[in-house]
Amino acid sequence: MIITKNARVLLLSEEGDEFLITVKPGSRFVTHLGIIEHDDILGKPFGSFVVTSKGVKIFVLSPGIIDEIFNMKRKTQIVYPKDLGFILLMLDVKNGDRVIDAGVGSGAMSYAFARAVGNSGRVYAYERRSDFLELARENFRKWNVEDIVELKLKDISDGFEEKNVDALFLDVPTPWDYLHHAWDALKSGGRIGIVVPTTNQVQEVLKRLYDLPFVKIEVWEDLFRPFKPVPDRLRPVDRMVAHTTYMIFAVKVG
Amino acid sequence: MIITKNARVLLLSEEGDEFLITVKPGSRFVTHLGIIEHDDILGKPFGSFVVTSKGVKIFVLSPGIIDEIFNMKRKTQIVYPKDLGFILLMLDVKNGDRVIDAGVGSGAMSYAFARAVGNSGRVYAYERRSDFLELARENFRKWNVEDIVELKLKDISDGFEEKNVDALFLDVPTPWDYLHHAWDALKSGGRIGIVVPTTNQVQEVLKRLYDLPFVKIEVWEDLFRPFKPVPDRLRPVDRMVAHTTYMIFAVKVG
Amino acid sequence: MIITKNARVLLLSEEGDEFLITVKPGSRFVTHLGIIEHDDILGKPFGSFVVTSKGVKIFVLSPGIIDEIFNMKRKTQIVYPKDLGFILLMLDVKNGDRVIDAGVGSGAMSYAFARAVGNSGRVYAYERRSDFLELARENFRKWNVEDIVELKLKDISDGFEEKNVDALFLDVPTPWDYLHHAWDALKSGGRIGIVVPTTNQVQEVLKRLYDLPFVKIEVWEDLFRPFKPVPDRLRPVDRMVAHTTYMIFAVKVG
Amino acid sequence: MIITKNARVLLLSEEGDEFLITVKPGSRFVTHLGIIEHDDILGKPFGSFVVTSKGVKIFVLSPGIIDEIFNMKRKTQIVYPKDLGFILLMLDVKNGDRVIDAGVGSGAMSYAFARAVGNSGRVYAYERRSDFLELARENFRKWNVEDIVELKLKDISDGFEEKNVDALFLDVPTPWDYLHHAWDALKSGGRIGIVVPTTNQVQEVLKRLYDLPFVKIEVWEDLFRPFKPVPDRLRPVDRMVAHTTYMIFAVKVG
Repeated sequence: MIITKNARVLLLSEEGDEFLITVKPGSRFVTHLGIIEHDDILGKPFGSFVVTSKGVKIFVLSPGIIDEIFNMKRKTQIVYPKDLGFILLMLDVKNGDRVIDAGVGSGAMSYAFARAVGNSGRVYAYERRSDFLELARENFRKWNVEDIVELKLKDISDGFEEKNVDALFLDVPTPWDYLHHAWDALKSGGRIGIVVPTTNQVQEVLKRLYDLPFVKIEVWEDLFRPFKPVPDRLRPVDRMVAHTTYMIFAVKVG
Repeated sequence: MIITKNARVLLLSEEGDEFLITVKPGSRFVTHLGIIEHDDILGKPFGSFVVTSKGVKIFVLSPGIIDEIFNMKRKTQIVYPKDLGFILLMLDVKNGDRVIDAGVGSGAMSYAFARAVGNSGRVYAYERRSDFLELARENFRKWNVEDIVELKLKDISDGFEEKNVDALFLDVPTPWDYLHHAWDALKSGGRIGIVVPTTNQVQEVLKRLYDLPFVKIEVWEDLFRPFKPVPDRLRPVDRMVAHTTYMIFAVKVG
Repeated sequence: MIITKNARVLLLSEEGDEFLITVKPGSRFVTHLGIIEHDDILGKPFGSFVVTSKGVKIFVLSPGIIDEIFNMKRKTQIVYPKDLGFILLMLDVKNGDRVIDAGVGSGAMSYAFARAVGNSGRVYAYERRSDFLELARENFRKWNVEDIVELKLKDISDGFEEKNVDALFLDVPTPWDYLHHAWDALKSGGRIGIVVPTTNQVQEVLKRLYDLPFVKIEVWEDLFRPFKPVPDRLRPVDRMVAHTTYMIFAVKVG
Repeated sequence: MIITKNARVLLLSEEGDEFLITVKPGSRFVTHLGIIEHDDILGKPFGSFVVTSKGVKIFVLSPGIIDEIFNMKRKTQIVYPKDLGFILLMLDVKNGDRVIDAGVGSGAMSYAFARAVGNSGRVYAYERRSDFLELARENFRKWNVEDIVELKLKDISDGFEEKNVDALFLDVPTPWDYLHHAWDALKSGGRIGIVVPTTNQVQEVLKRLYDLPFVKIEVWEDLFRPFKPVPDRLRPVDRMVAHTTYMIFAVKVG
């Protein structure tokens, strides 16, 4: 695939430095490894390389969803890829689904939902802070999902505008306040996912979930550990992420 | 959504017993909790419940991908959902992609790929054992992805028949033997994922990967820990899965 | 070292079966691997082997503290070796120390303390249930620490009888009720350790600790993962312990 | 306990800054929190506090073994307390034992062994680099165990000078080269512990262990995770140690 105008490109040095850019004719990207002319990238295939003004070899790759999430403009804590993939599966999000994402933040989760539901699906993305909303809008445009994600500048304390959604995701500070609204918005048999960083919050969410017609209530956490990819000295890295969030799941009945 | 003939239904008791069935008019499902007539289920909405001959309440839910994977007929070790979600993200599999899955086994990974690539995409599923292949075929039919997954009874030691695939997944005992074939099949900038259970295999894969034009080589493992979902006594469960697989990723260049 | 009458002996088969016995002249030990005459063991050195009536080779080893803990008679949840070693270090227990162990249970922790403080030290072991106390007494006799551990059948709600102890360990259901008593019993600069299985209990303990003159407050948990010790297929085992306890530590000031 | 001349003192601010000093009459300790006169500390009890020249309150505590290890002068990778406590238990080191520590480094492990064996025991500490040895010697003096630890400037490729030791610990780059010497030095039934950072090294050690008369061969790793000790927002910290070492254990027979 040939790199064209406005393409997203992940620049990768042999030492592992990474930069994510949008290619613009005439632009230049300045880094400690030297200068890269965007025009040198245009027309090249993904997977090829360019050489900086300092003679450093730089691979030009097509950024994946994880590259986009870790390199996006953000003002909020993100849902990490390590959790995100599992959430997509636990919520069983698939082509054509209608999904609510409440507490959009910078938009990583909505982006993942949008890719999973495709053009025949819909993501209703609630955010009450207009600065976050504008940032998310910008990110969605960049990621080409602005036609799938419907952004709503709205507090969810009055409930959701949709009914019968297939799945609903809550990433807000006090999710227990909105679980009855979530139940209302979900289809019967629909799935809810909630992320909270503290054990106190998990306790509050669970209490409220048991008061409502939800079943299959589960709580998970995960630890992802990278290894140094050295065949003769294979071992985990020295330090790792210790905690991002607890994940709570349930299914609406009744 | 109303449950119709041939629907997949997850039966869930209040104590957490789970059974996955395909609804057939006139059939009955016999369990230690009593008998359930399929006809009692037909016409009910997902999220409702039936009562067994012993008076036990059973919820009728729509099975998600994780329910299907854990309840499927299988003869092989499966890729666990905990790993599977992350692999989908790391391989950046999305609508319209063409993906190779080598070492299909019972088909869990191909199923996940099929859902991610959708009707405009394609999964080329290689398996050399005909008994595994037939089982996978049966599973794909059940999951409604037989039009997306192209099953191939074929040893991969002669290489893959496709070129320019977006992603390739290797789940075979000696993946290092096929990495050059994988490189041939991938598009420039395409992504490869490899799963192996032992550290010795990781070492072998890494050695070979460094001999070929691959970059962004990463090795990961993960630990997922469920909690007892009891709000007043919140704590992890007593025992957990300690290990399923190591995951290795890379991107083709050049 | 030669095995003599009343010695503790760990029997180990080549397949990894383990049995812990006290050697008595004239006794016999019956197992599915065949019968072992104690007289065959007497006089042999530790590290040698005997052969059962069925011809199975059995190594006769000297049991270590971990073997004793996992094989002891018990009626209670034990402090696991994985946690125990860290607690000994965090409480800085050493030769000559005076230590309180409240909530003795079957005595594993007191045993570990007794070995660390030696003959010049003292362990004050509080237990309010007489059946647990008798079991612990029996265990201490077997382990030869009955002169170091002073067992007390006593509820700690009235406080501890000792002052100026070097360290204090609380393994009771509601430790927050006794933290002021613990403070009274500790020397200035003395260390406290508390174990509780649930996050709710950790929260309660922390609240109370911050109300009292304690500093250096820390909370830890640990995961220990065994590997299959196979050099050509090195990998973690399939399943592991997910959780035993949270460990809380603090130092008395003031 | 009153702080006297040459006492080791752990200084702790309310924000958690820690400094470990040896108290010398007339000295002053300069830090960003202000100056502390050693004479202000002398005569105070452990657990009390002093005030710096800037008015900052500083607790004066008695350092525990973990404080000493993390604050010691070192030129080498240390054995972490998280591993160290478990090793002490697995090697069953106790009062009166004779233990070999090969690859002394800065001396943390020998220190822990020395405390466990007491005055009636003995630690034979091998180190081939004289600069490490001198540093360890200085540390042992500081920790008051120089009469228990016998330092030996010696390469272990010619074997160990002791026989019938109770336990032996190997912390060297190629431990498989010395396992036969270790076997020679151990008593029958004695225990060996080996630490190595990479999976390749574990594989090599296991291969060699199976060639020698060792039983009860085990491989472990552990993850210790600290929590933020905040009762209303209880959660793990953001980042943690991902890996220090693999631990291999075995028992000599034959």
